[in-house]
Amino acid sequence: MTEFNEGDQASFSKTITEADILLYAAVSGDTNPVHLDAEYARQTRFGGRIAHGMLTAGLVSAVIGTKLPGRGAIYAGQTLRFLAPVHIGDTVTATATLAAYDKARGRMTLSTVCRNQRGEEVLTGEAHVVYRT
Amino acid sequence: MTEFNEGDQASFSKTITEADILLYAAVSGDTNPVHLDAEYARQTRFGGRIAHGMLTAGLVSAVIGTKLPGRGAIYAGQTLRFLAPVHIGDTVTATATLAAYDKARGRMTLSTVCRNQRGEEVLTGEAHVVYRT
Amino acid sequence: MTEFNEGDQASFSKTITEADILLYAAVSGDTNPVHLDAEYARQTRFGGRIAHGMLTAGLVSAVIGTKLPGRGAIYAGQTLRFLAPVHIGDTVTATATLAAYDKARGRMTLSTVCRNQRGEEVLTGEAHVVYRT
Amino acid sequence: MTEFNEGDQASFSKTITEADILLYAAVSGDTNPVHLDAEYARQTRFGGRIAHGMLTAGLVSAVIGTKLPGRGAIYAGQTLRFLAPVHIGDTVTATATLAAYDKARGRMTLSTVCRNQRGEEVLTGEAHVVYRT
Repeated sequence: MTEFNEGDQASFSKTITEADILLYAAVSGDTNPVHLDAEYARQTRFGGRIAHGMLTAGLVSAVIGTKLPGRGAIYAGQTLRFLAPVHIGDTVTATATLAAYDKARGRMTLSTVCRNQRGEEVLTGEAHVVYRT
Repeated sequence: MTEFNEGDQASFSKTITEADILLYAAVSGDTNPVHLDAEYARQTRFGGRIAHGMLTAGLVSAVIGTKLPGRGAIYAGQTLRFLAPVHIGDTVTATATLAAYDKARGRMTLSTVCRNQRGEEVLTGEAHVVYRT
Repeated sequence: MTEFNEGDQASFSKTITEADILLYAAVSGDTNPVHLDAEYARQTRFGGRIAHGMLTAGLVSAVIGTKLPGRGAIYAGQTLRFLAPVHIGDTVTATATLAAYDKARGRMTLSTVCRNQRGEEVLTGEAHVVYRT
Repeated sequence: MTEFNEGDQASFSKTITEADILLYAAVSGDTNPVHLDAEYARQTRFGGRIAHGMLTAGLVSAVIGTKLPGRGAIYAGQTLRFLAPVHIGDTVTATATLAAYDKARGRMTLSTVCRNQRGEEVLTGEAHVVYRT
């Protein structure tokens, strides 16, 4: 069993591809044309297809579910602010930092941020996790 | 262009399958064993594999991206409270209700809830959407 | 319940990606090299990989299954004429027009056409649908 | 190069799974609830989720694209009559029979049928293929 302390940090990175967007549309049912229709998306403020914001949020889930704290994590809550679009081919790094940890009650609060390959914040928020070891 | 008003409501339903969980793990990178390892999951408080909470949150994205308001929606933020597990084979209905709509600025606040086939709330929260027509 | 009338029209658009072609090959079992082998496809009259004709036909299914008439639609028959190739990156718009509707018997005939981003017809045909409300 | 003659026959079989239906929904965009929502589908005449008719039609595409005639086939047209539902777990066998072959012009007409594991016809039709060797 891993010991965790406030200030601990972990990251997960992934390049977002057309395949990710297609599969996420399948799993979520979100077929909004800004994700699937290049002609439409070109005419929007984004200038092309972008990833679903909630797809990017999945990388936060990956950090929590596999690294900090990983096995034993139960997701209790998450706030999400979508700050900038993620385009096809962007590489997103999700980072979680343990902000508060009540070991007795197994309650963690983590600050979470996703950045693209240029270091720009695309998503910020806070996670609440129950950790049962 | 559709006209929206406070109190408007829309829903999207989907049965959560093993395939959803596998594909969501692939897209998100969240390979936590409670989702993928039936032997491990059997020994947890859930008694079996459960869907990623953030996968369920994708159904909220589907309502917003395809129905209320649909085309033209830009996701600005979302809060999520995960209240109960979603098991393989459960059918989840995500419902969004337009709580506040500032038409001049194109800003919507929606209350969002996901329920299983027994009507139990599995996820609640609030969405913030920019709607450009 | 939506009321439908002859002349009603609905469309669905989607950009056809490599991921679509790969997944369609997986689901259908159609591994013809003109879809999967870029070297072979380059030497054909098409000059490169093209989408499966029946993949394009799926967009007609989407219009019927989600919009006209959507929920309650039962597909009874379809004729398909494949007129031009769909290349990777093309955006296809499928449009269905309600040509005949026997409300008493719940029988619809729809003329169906798929066009690429240049407006060229790539697929035409006729759909027969039973609509149970 | 294979020599083909009228009367030649070829088949392709595949079990239709939840994963096929999910991926087909992604590729086609057809998210009709009779395919994705078990609770809704249970209340229809089908008694449960069924495969997209056009997904089954993909198995006909597989026979033509990989076996009869396979490499060199260009799909020119297809008629489809959907006769019976395909449920999750059904195994469908698509069979094509070369009905007419104009070797000089490279034009083939094939009668096509899909049967389930009980031998019941679920789909019939006729394919038109240009065969360039």
